[in-house]
Amino acid sequence: MSDSGAIPGELLAIRQRIDDIDRGIVELLRERFALTHEVGLLKASRELNALDARREEEKLNALAALSEANELDPNLVRDLFRRIMDEVVRNHERLRADSRETEL
Amino acid sequence: MSDSGAIPGELLAIRQRIDDIDRGIVELLRERFALTHEVGLLKASRELNALDARREEEKLNALAALSEANELDPNLVRDLFRRIMDEVVRNHERLRADSRETEL
Repeated sequence: MSDSGAIPGELLAIRQRIDDIDRGIVELLRERFALTHEVGLLKASRELNALDARREEEKLNALAALSEANELDPNLVRDLFRRIMDEVVRNHERLRADSRETEL
Repeated sequence: MSDSGAIPGELLAIRQRIDDIDRGIVELLRERFALTHEVGLLKASRELNALDARREEEKLNALAALSEANELDPNLVRDLFRRIMDEVVRNHERLRADSRETEL
């Protein structure tokens, strides 16, 4: 544990910039889940599969390539987006189940 | 598997917006790791701990609260940032080990 009196001002300034970035990431995630919700509604209404395995694989590969270009560990980025996409698939399955119930 | 000829134009348009968001997330991650690299150098030069447990816990709580305000699952956001911060701690430990070797 460190106590804030002991933290150099330079470190505090960088931490504020990191906090801004994190708020930006959360904001992008919010927009992303709003868009995948639209995708889920579209897919449910047309009985398309919740999971498009090829799209997911292509996205993960494209993100891994983009990560390397950005000097980021591609495994880290794959892990993050796999976790995000798993959540999207679960949401879509729920939407599809809801839409079937409505039709009964 | 779906074949792109079968994918409605509406879905393709949303996917392009999702791809833009994902590029934005990768860009923010790149900036974030550049900043945490600076933090790591600062900490290594002053022999501060690689892991600041309180800062990590405070950040995860703040992000969980921010997620709820943004209608995102706080567990998802916690998982993502825990994965990011684990990577940061590993990078910092590496920087500290490098800096000790240099001093020997």
